[in-house]
Amino acid sequence: MNSFEFQNPTKLLFGPDKLSQLGQEISVYGKKVLLVYGGGSIKSSGLYDRVLQQLEQIQAEVHELAGVEPNPRVTTVKKGIDICRQQGVDFILAVGGGSVLDAAKAVAAGVPYDGDVWDFCIRKAQIQSALPLGTVLTLSATGSEMNGNSVITNWEENLKKSFGSIHAYPKFSILDPTLTYSVPANQTVNGIVDMMSHVFEQYFSPTTGTPLQERLCESILQTVIENGEQALQYPSDYAARANIMLCGTYALNGGMISIGMQNDWATHMIEHEVSAIYDIAHAEGLSVLFPNWMKYVYQERIDRFVQYAVRVWQIDPNGKSDNEIALAGIQATREYFTRIGAPSRLSDLNIDAKELDRMAKETVRFGPVGSFKPLYESDVRQILEMSL
Amino acid sequence: MNSFEFQNPTKLLFGPDKLSQLGQEISVYGKKVLLVYGGGSIKSSGLYDRVLQQLEQIQAEVHELAGVEPNPRVTTVKKGIDICRQQGVDFILAVGGGSVLDAAKAVAAGVPYDGDVWDFCIRKAQIQSALPLGTVLTLSATGSEMNGNSVITNWEENLKKSFGSIHAYPKFSILDPTLTYSVPANQTVNGIVDMMSHVFEQYFSPTTGTPLQERLCESILQTVIENGEQALQYPSDYAARANIMLCGTYALNGGMISIGMQNDWATHMIEHEVSAIYDIAHAEGLSVLFPNWMKYVYQERIDRFVQYAVRVWQIDPNGKSDNEIALAGIQATREYFTRIGAPSRLSDLNIDAKELDRMAKETVRFGPVGSFKPLYESDVRQILEMSL
Repeated sequence: MNSFEFQNPTKLLFGPDKLSQLGQEISVYGKKVLLVYGGGSIKSSGLYDRVLQQLEQIQAEVHELAGVEPNPRVTTVKKGIDICRQQGVDFILAVGGGSVLDAAKAVAAGVPYDGDVWDFCIRKAQIQSALPLGTVLTLSATGSEMNGNSVITNWEENLKKSFGSIHAYPKFSILDPTLTYSVPANQTVNGIVDMMSHVFEQYFSPTTGTPLQERLCESILQTVIENGEQALQYPSDYAARANIMLCGTYALNGGMISIGMQNDWATHMIEHEVSAIYDIAHAEGLSVLFPNWMKYVYQERIDRFVQYAVRVWQIDPNGKSDNEIALAGIQATREYFTRIGAPSRLSDLNIDAKELDRMAKETVRFGPVGSFKPLYESDVRQILEMSL
Repeated sequence: MNSFEFQNPTKLLFGPDKLSQLGQEISVYGKKVLLVYGGGSIKSSGLYDRVLQQLEQIQAEVHELAGVEPNPRVTTVKKGIDICRQQGVDFILAVGGGSVLDAAKAVAAGVPYDGDVWDFCIRKAQIQSALPLGTVLTLSATGSEMNGNSVITNWEENLKKSFGSIHAYPKFSILDPTLTYSVPANQTVNGIVDMMSHVFEQYFSPTTGTPLQERLCESILQTVIENGEQALQYPSDYAARANIMLCGTYALNGGMISIGMQNDWATHMIEHEVSAIYDIAHAEGLSVLFPNWMKYVYQERIDRFVQYAVRVWQIDPNGKSDNEIALAGIQATREYFTRIGAPSRLSDLNIDAKELDRMAKETVRFGPVGSFKPLYESDVRQILEMSL
């Protein structure tokens, strides 16, 4: 186990009754609110009206940043920053999924910063402060509701980059599983792949002597796997939706499950270059890439992959070599993704070999990626080729 | 899963190199420090000098509350409050184990309160604010380093009561596993029993539909069990000490492992009445009581005890009835406690039947205790009798 520092100040309010506390939670911080949301789904579901009621109760002055894209654009973030500055906004409220939350974080951090908010994404500047931010989550996936991370896309430059800061943690997040009942099946699938991938990036680590953290990771994976198909078959099953929602949050809440472990994140970095060029969902790219990444790297530390196969997928180790056990676990991962309807090849996403070189090159722009096995340009290219 | 709210703002600094950040962490909050500690062990180990160096570096004005007892006394807490008020202390630093941390929390909460600090323990008043508090942990056990709980003893009235408050969470806690190398074997044993008991109180819950939380609990139990004997045999084994330290913190960090689950805590409440009369270590009482509590209640929800036996103790369920599996898990618990040298009977602690009535009566002073199976006076008495 490595030395580490960990802090996660976000207050979680979880359950079907918690939206009624929204106004009260906001009023601790401010009265001039920027409401950030995506497409029209929060309007058609009635959530928009319920949120406005809460804001009216505390007599908040409400401004809006609507239409945040999946893979939120830095141009949209800048619009939000302008509104905040012009109107003297003192609180950001994000209502939506990971993209909306990520955009809201970038707005919150950008308002008090004199330079270009994109600076945070390319490590040109560090976040020193941010407007207070609260969230109402409508999609279980990214964990953005309980961490300080944000992924922003610069479409003009085909760049998708992330930042993380203690200042960007939401002050509170309201998690109501019933709000996810109406999430379309493909987005539920994406959320499942996304949270499992977040765990993979932490679990497949070069760090040894971390038995508790490994088990925490396995706990989340097993629970997502069990509940994923249930939620897809019965979209209004409260228990399944609640379990998945909690797993999504714990999978990436500031590293709570992997404290003291070096993380990998190579697959995320490769995927970001895919979805920076092709406008696919992040999780679609991950579903294609992760099993191939696993096949490419598993011999680096086969014990971890054997443990994964046995504990998470209940692969019977009797009479099998370590190699066979590890590969059976990877195969089980691929089969699960396929079973829930996630893509397995780049060609499923209409992506061909044309941009492989560019994606591989951009992935390693700042040097090799990953820690389980550091990947150079040629490694990344091979994983992309295996994924075609 | 029940609805819940969760927040844990404590910053953890974990590792053998983290004490060097103590001064810097304190300086965020204050300069007039009350240093709270127990007996002389931090002096003989050299830790006291290292802490003072850190305080000197930031030119802090240092006052001391030394000699905090195991089962810390409300009289000691009041001494600390007086010092803080007289000297205008603005930061509390606790260096020690759970008792020192608990006393420091009570001091921190008591300073801005006009009434008697004991009011918080008997629910006569709620904590509205507290001085900022930081900790340097020297003993893995109570989880007090990352929660807002405190247990205080009123020796005059033979009462041992607890309070919990978001205001009493440490701002930061420094966890250095090497500081626990010199902990005597019996205190290491007590710590192991204590953290396992904390998990039991959450895991044996009447709440259903909590697969993630159950696995998080099982993860801690398995890791403690694996590492406990290693730490006892090799007291300077960093990995074992670090794993146990992390388990102790996660076992009771504001309910992170059992969010949405009703907790039990009956066994703790019974034990508090035992150690309010007899000056035994809290964990000694728990070691005696817990397996007997398990035997008394397991049929209430045998599925949870079957799961416990199979997942935590690897009891082979084949050819056994649920009753046999559950009892085998309870037996394994008792045998583990005995194997590491924890007591199994009240008579091992020189406690006879004389005060059973009084302890049973006091346990249910505010009504039946526990939620897995609510226990009335006669139930408590039977568990105490089984423990003689």
